[in-house]
Amino acid sequence: MLLNPDEVTDHGTVTIDDGRAAHVRTVLKATPGQSIQVGIIDGPRGVATVQSVDGGSVTLQCTFESTVVSIPPVDLLLALPRPKVMKRLWAQLAAIGIGRILLVNAARVERQYFDTHVLAADCYRPLLIEGLQQARDTRLPVVSIHRRLKVLVEDELGESIGGWARLLADPGARTTVRSAVQSTRAERCLLAVGPEGGWTDFERSLLQAHGFTAVGMRPRTLRSDTACVGLLTLVHEALADTAGT
Amino acid sequence: MLLNPDEVTDHGTVTIDDGRAAHVRTVLKATPGQSIQVGIIDGPRGVATVQSVDGGSVTLQCTFESTVVSIPPVDLLLALPRPKVMKRLWAQLAAIGIGRILLVNAARVERQYFDTHVLAADCYRPLLIEGLQQARDTRLPVVSIHRRLKVLVEDELGESIGGWARLLADPGARTTVRSAVQSTRAERCLLAVGPEGGWTDFERSLLQAHGFTAVGMRPRTLRSDTACVGLLTLVHEALADTAGT
Repeated sequence: MLLNPDEVTDHGTVTIDDGRAAHVRTVLKATPGQSIQVGIIDGPRGVATVQSVDGGSVTLQCTFESTVVSIPPVDLLLALPRPKVMKRLWAQLAAIGIGRILLVNAARVERQYFDTHVLAADCYRPLLIEGLQQARDTRLPVVSIHRRLKVLVEDELGESIGGWARLLADPGARTTVRSAVQSTRAERCLLAVGPEGGWTDFERSLLQAHGFTAVGMRPRTLRSDTACVGLLTLVHEALADTAGT
Repeated sequence: MLLNPDEVTDHGTVTIDDGRAAHVRTVLKATPGQSIQVGIIDGPRGVATVQSVDGGSVTLQCTFESTVVSIPPVDLLLALPRPKVMKRLWAQLAAIGIGRILLVNAARVERQYFDTHVLAADCYRPLLIEGLQQARDTRLPVVSIHRRLKVLVEDELGESIGGWARLLADPGARTTVRSAVQSTRAERCLLAVGPEGGWTDFERSLLQAHGFTAVGMRPRTLRSDTACVGLLTLVHEALADTAGT
């Protein structure tokens, strides 16, 4: 269960009375003295002992680890998918572990996708927290929305930094995620995933001119959420293997 | 667009008047003479020329490839997830490419999950076809539902067959999907994915006694759909790499 930093007193106590309190009472069926796993958003994990359950509110006494959870070594640059697909992705991205989520426009993204409520923090933040809680992570992905790919890539991303691999998912590419990560001996990765209709040649060239290497999966067209989960799993695995060798 | 075998005449013509016809008219905006990509369920891919568009019906003249699409080399044994999660999975599994989907009960699967309409062929078949169409595959996964894991594993699966790796996803395992596939030089794989609460010790032992090797991803608890998509991507990639070396 994740807590906001400002909810926890200096003595490590916290009283909650929202959906989390209901979860403690009805799903965990916790009683005073029982321990539950907690974490502070963007902070350490810890253990809490239930002090009291009083009507709708629950008071916990927390002890946190001395080290903060590290930021996941993968960022995602994603051409904005259909709202229905994006809504499904939020919790999954947080659960897989992503540092930054950069949502961007592209030629084959429909303009009205940007007007959807699934891009409002009020909508996606609870979904990200749901994913973090599932995975026992505390690091909330940093979300940003970019209307112009060219401005993002040329002005905002900056130069490719040492230790970061920049990968561009492209069904036609023959280089695998694994070989691209290993050949650069990268410790972190920024993965760009295009719209379901693909990047245009201009967009692909723009990304490649800014250090992105095209990597392929098997030649199947996948929905954005399936493609993201699959590719991000391959990236995490390749980074972990490279770190281990 | 996928066609049923019995819809196509011996001369390769087919007339459709359902949602697919609407798709041809309104999304593809196809006119007579135009080509569209087609496939026969469990048969070959092909190309169709639009012959006529007449009110709600569309007539196509098809030419099919001489070889049938091969069955994907991965089967999935999945402890039945929550209906909401299962519903999301159908199209994704078909798009990733799965030969057989064996849905099974387990100690940490809630009994009422088996009573849901998402297990009715009327519900899942259109979702599987949607996934196949996205990935341009024709092989409909064969779905079966098993109320008893023990009976399935001991009596119905049979002995592990040469060429098939049997893997058991286990967050605690140190062997990776890749090393397990490579060490057996398997060409095909049956992957077992447990419930969100995990297999019990008894279930894990049962599977291991029947040839399943425990393989891990990173130690994060993931929702069943995220875990399946991630693991199946790793399995497909490892099989493709093993075949290529």
